[in-house]
Amino acid sequence: MEKKGLLIVVSGPSGAGKGTVLAHTTEKYSNLKYSVSVTTRAPRDGEVDGVNYFFKSVEQFKKMVAGGEFLEHKEVHNNYYGTPLAHVQKNLSDGYDVVLEIDTEGALDVKNIYPDCVMIFITPEKFSTIEKRLRGRSTESEEQIQIRIQNAYKELKQAVYYDYIVVNEDAQQAAMDVISIIEAEKCKVKNNKKFIDNLIYGGK
Amino acid sequence: MEKKGLLIVVSGPSGAGKGTVLAHTTEKYSNLKYSVSVTTRAPRDGEVDGVNYFFKSVEQFKKMVAGGEFLEHKEVHNNYYGTPLAHVQKNLSDGYDVVLEIDTEGALDVKNIYPDCVMIFITPEKFSTIEKRLRGRSTESEEQIQIRIQNAYKELKQAVYYDYIVVNEDAQQAAMDVISIIEAEKCKVKNNKKFIDNLIYGGK
Repeated sequence: MEKKGLLIVVSGPSGAGKGTVLAHTTEKYSNLKYSVSVTTRAPRDGEVDGVNYFFKSVEQFKKMVAGGEFLEHKEVHNNYYGTPLAHVQKNLSDGYDVVLEIDTEGALDVKNIYPDCVMIFITPEKFSTIEKRLRGRSTESEEQIQIRIQNAYKELKQAVYYDYIVVNEDAQQAAMDVISIIEAEKCKVKNNKKFIDNLIYGGK
Repeated sequence: MEKKGLLIVVSGPSGAGKGTVLAHTTEKYSNLKYSVSVTTRAPRDGEVDGVNYFFKSVEQFKKMVAGGEFLEHKEVHNNYYGTPLAHVQKNLSDGYDVVLEIDTEGALDVKNIYPDCVMIFITPEKFSTIEKRLRGRSTESEEQIQIRIQNAYKELKQAVYYDYIVVNEDAQQAAMDVISIIEAEKCKVKNNKKFIDNLIYGGK
């Protein structure tokens, strides 16, 4: 089978548990590399540069934008976030599968640039779970929580533009579903044209 | 997630080991039902009516054809083979996934009737393996073996019309690939429209 890595784009509303699912996925599936984003926001407690994010100044970030160093980037609440292109390309050409965890807007940008990327949407089984999780972990005001809930709802409506939807009620099971999707994509005929050509015309 | 079963069509050249792969698959994945074909050919040693095939007379078979009881049927070397429609439909509506093991011609007929079926092509990694397996198990003349090899080669060329290609070097691994494909298909957005609608519009 072919050696080229797959680009996997994962989105889902806040409270869907994307981070936990992907942590289990990369743990179980060693060929998968998590693409670390660049951000200008300050590190939170426990966040490590190069692991959770690459932390940069606004000036450094803008220089990277000007240099075309991002696959996609955006501004959220006066902070910049971006997916560094070079890391993604290097891993893919080394045969690793790469997963990006980005919002639906960035995901559709990536799909335009890499039409072969695999788009996975992670969601809980019920919207009420999102609300419960957002309230459970938040120390924010009711107004801020309402904004987050509205945003989650907007993200959810974008699910129809994805290839796959993974329900996260049990993060280990959801990770197994993500791995099945990767394995299945590797079996797709469209991803194995060279192999098939060689099988038919190389073997006779 | 939705409960409707998937129709899975498996083909591959003689000597690809489809039977062994599917035996491992149904063993590991209990929701998958193997569709037993109808045939007019005589049972071989050890073959059980209703397990390997439904054995029918030519007269019975022709009556079934006239009654529209087949999803697809064909004649090979003066014997008739067919996929009984009722069994497939009953299992699918009961929520089981159904796998048909049929030749590439029958598979493309099924795709026309059930465009949502999942088409999987099973093959060894190299054409020489097919030749070796056909020679290894055959008590036939060189001429007959050559016909089988030519047929295998013709079947192989149809792989490009399938959705997935599974390489069978290790039948257990190939069965895991088939299961990943089924699990991934169940996560496809197009197979979860109702779930997504309900998530978005039922939850607010």
